[in-house]
Amino acid sequence: MVKVAEAEAIIQGQCRDFGAEIIPFDQALGRVLAEDLQADRDFPPFNRVTMDGIAIQFQAFEKGNRSFKIKATQAAGEPAKELQEEADCIEIMTGAVLPQTTDTVIRYEDLEIQNGVATLLTENIKAGQNIHRQGKDKRQGGIVASANQVITPALMNVAASVGATEIKVKKLPRVVVLSTGDELVEVHEKPQPYQIRKSNSYTIQAALQQFKVLAELRHLPDNPEQIRTELLDCLKAYDVILLSGGISKGKFDYVPEVLSELQVETLFQHVQQRPGKPFWFGKHPHGALVFAFPGNPVSTFMCLYRYFFPWLKISFGLDTKKFFACLSTDFTFKPELQYFLQVKLQVSEQGKLVAEPVEGNGSGDLTNLVDADAFLELPAERTHFQAGEVFRVWPFKQLF
Amino acid sequence: MVKVAEAEAIIQGQCRDFGAEIIPFDQALGRVLAEDLQADRDFPPFNRVTMDGIAIQFQAFEKGNRSFKIKATQAAGEPAKELQEEADCIEIMTGAVLPQTTDTVIRYEDLEIQNGVATLLTENIKAGQNIHRQGKDKRQGGIVASANQVITPALMNVAASVGATEIKVKKLPRVVVLSTGDELVEVHEKPQPYQIRKSNSYTIQAALQQFKVLAELRHLPDNPEQIRTELLDCLKAYDVILLSGGISKGKFDYVPEVLSELQVETLFQHVQQRPGKPFWFGKHPHGALVFAFPGNPVSTFMCLYRYFFPWLKISFGLDTKKFFACLSTDFTFKPELQYFLQVKLQVSEQGKLVAEPVEGNGSGDLTNLVDADAFLELPAERTHFQAGEVFRVWPFKQLF
Repeated sequence: MVKVAEAEAIIQGQCRDFGAEIIPFDQALGRVLAEDLQADRDFPPFNRVTMDGIAIQFQAFEKGNRSFKIKATQAAGEPAKELQEEADCIEIMTGAVLPQTTDTVIRYEDLEIQNGVATLLTENIKAGQNIHRQGKDKRQGGIVASANQVITPALMNVAASVGATEIKVKKLPRVVVLSTGDELVEVHEKPQPYQIRKSNSYTIQAALQQFKVLAELRHLPDNPEQIRTELLDCLKAYDVILLSGGISKGKFDYVPEVLSELQVETLFQHVQQRPGKPFWFGKHPHGALVFAFPGNPVSTFMCLYRYFFPWLKISFGLDTKKFFACLSTDFTFKPELQYFLQVKLQVSEQGKLVAEPVEGNGSGDLTNLVDADAFLELPAERTHFQAGEVFRVWPFKQLF
Repeated sequence: MVKVAEAEAIIQGQCRDFGAEIIPFDQALGRVLAEDLQADRDFPPFNRVTMDGIAIQFQAFEKGNRSFKIKATQAAGEPAKELQEEADCIEIMTGAVLPQTTDTVIRYEDLEIQNGVATLLTENIKAGQNIHRQGKDKRQGGIVASANQVITPALMNVAASVGATEIKVKKLPRVVVLSTGDELVEVHEKPQPYQIRKSNSYTIQAALQQFKVLAELRHLPDNPEQIRTELLDCLKAYDVILLSGGISKGKFDYVPEVLSELQVETLFQHVQQRPGKPFWFGKHPHGALVFAFPGNPVSTFMCLYRYFFPWLKISFGLDTKKFFACLSTDFTFKPELQYFLQVKLQVSEQGKLVAEPVEGNGSGDLTNLVDADAFLELPAERTHFQAGEVFRVWPFKQLF
C-alpha cells in the first residue's frame, strides 16, 4: 500500500506527450493549444477610431479653430480618406481607419453640427484622443496566445482575429473505459434482482469530455479467456485503459492475473485512502497505462479527479493549480487513511472558499455526489478536523 | 443611462421559461434536468456484499464457531444462493447479493482457507458487517436527482443507475448571434488594411456551448434595407438576438432605428460601466429579446458573462451563486462608472480567492482576456480600491 502522495508521484512519473495535430478552427474549442499564436499584423491593424464624430488635425485646434467644415465621411470598412485643409474635418465612424493627415477624434457628444459644419462644445480636447493606435495591443509577429493552454471562448476571439483557420493542438490520448463484472446490465435493460445497471463507464466517458477526450466503452465479462483477448487488444489499440471494478481479491476477479500474464507491470496496487483503497496502476512495456479503479462509483469518481485528470493535464502541458478550502464544520475520521470528504463549495462574502460536508448517508452513497462539488482531502495522520481549518480541495463541478 | 444593478434587474425581469423536452440519455450531459429523477428500485437493490470472503450466520460465530465449511460460491451477477446449516458458509464476491439466511461477511484478509474450510483469523467480527444494505442509499421512488440542475458526470451515473434512457431537460432558447459592420471579413479572408476579421461571433458561439446552446451566426452589412429584412426574420425565428456592434451613434449604425421601426422596445440603452457602456437591451412585443453588445471584444465578453449568462441560468431554473474575491493590489479608476477589471484568480493556501489584475496594456486589449480568468466588479461610487478588499467577481474560465 502506498500513500496518496506516493501514488500521485508514481502516476505523474508516467505522463506522456501524445504529440500534436492540426485541426480546423471550428473544432478547436476545449482542445489544448500546441503552438504560440502570432499576430499576423499589428493589433489594431490601423489607427482605429473608437468614437463616432469627426477627425481633425490637432494643430488646428491649438491655433484656435473651433469650427470645422465636414469635407467627407469615413465609414468603417472603407480605405482611409485624406484631409487636405486643417480648417476642415472628416466625419468618422467607430471602427473606421483614421483619415490621413488627421490625428484627433472628437465625439458627437462634444459637437454641434449644422449646415455641414461641426462646432466644438468643449475645450477639453486632447491630442490623439479616441484613437486606438496601430500596434498598441500587439505588434505583428507578437504572441497573442501561448502554447499549452486550453482554447477558451476568449482565445477563439484571438485566433479568429489573426486568421488562424487551422490550429495546432495537442493530440488526444486514445482511451478505453472497461467495465467489469457479470452483475452489470445495460442502462436500457431491466435488471434482475441480483443485477445492477452499468453506470461508471458513462460517468468516466462524460467527465473526459471536459478535455474533448472521446473514450470508447467496452465490457469485460467474468471469463478469463475473454478478458485476456479483450485486454490484449486494448493494450495495443489504446494509450490508456481505465478499468472500473474487477481488481479486488474475488475468485472471479481475473483482471490482475491476466494483466500480469500480459506483462503489465504493477506500479502500485493499494492506496492509503478512502474511498478508493484498492486502486491499482500499471504500465505495459509498449507504453499503455492501466488505471484500475475500484468498482464503487464514488471511488472511481474520486480517483478520476484526484489522479487521472492531473496526469492528463500534465501530459497536455497544462498547469495544475492547487485549490484550498476551509472546512465549515468539525469532522472526525479515525482510520489511518487519507479521507476524501464530499463537500459543497461556496465562496463567502470575505472571498473564502468554504467546504461543507454533504455525506448524510455515508461516503458510499452515490446520490451525495450529485449534490457535492468537490472532495476535500483530509490527511491520513490525523483523525479530528476542525471547522475553519484549510485543506486541499479537488473540485469536480463547474463553479460558475 | 442605467446603473449596473438596474440593468441587471431589467434583464432578469425578462427571464423566460422555454419549456421542456425529452432527449436520449447519451445527449443529456450539460443540459438542465427538468424533472426529478426517481429510484426505480431500492439502492442498493439488494443486500450487496462489499468484500470478497465468506458469508455466515452471525449466530454461529456467537455460539463459538470459528471454522466454516464452504458449501458454495456466490458470484456477483448470480441469483442469491441459500445457506442451509449454520456450521457452513458460502464463499462470496464483492458486488454479489448476500446469500439467503446469511447476515455477515468476513473478508479473505481475516480468513485462512484450507481443504474447503474457512477458519477465522480474528475475533473482531460484527454482526452485519461488509454488507451495503438494500435501500440504504435510497428507497424505491425516492429522488436521486432534483430538477433544475445541470446534468454533470456524477448525475449521469445516477441516471444510468435508475435506467433513465430518456431524460426530460429544459428546452434551449433559439439564439442568433449577429455581427455588424462593413469592416468585418471572415476568418479565412485576408483583410484589407482598413478591415478586421470577424471574431466576436465565434467567441459568443463558443461561450454558449457551455450550456449546450447552439447559436447560429449571421452578419448584418451596413445597409438599412438588408438590416431590416434580417432583423425582421430574426425576431420571428429566434428567442434571443445577440448583437455585437452597430448600436453606437454612427451614421451607419442603422440598427437602433430599424429595431425601433420593428417595434422592439428599448428597455435600456447605456449602462454606467466600463467596458460596455453602450450596451443596449430591448424586447419585441412577441417575446424576442435583443441584447445589443458594444462591438469591442472585451465589452461584448464582459456583457455576456455579467448579464446574459445570469439571465440564461435563471431562465433555466438554475441557481446563480455569487462569487467574491480579494484584490491583490491597489487599483485606481476615476470615472464614475462600474469598472470590470480583468483579473487572474487563484486560491491561496488560506483558502482565499485572490484576484490579480492583468491589464498591462489597457482594458481594451483583447489578448489580456486570454490570460484573465474573471472580471472583478469595482463599484462606480469609488475611485480607490485597496489590496485586500473583497469585491464581487465574475469568472469566465473553468478554474480546475
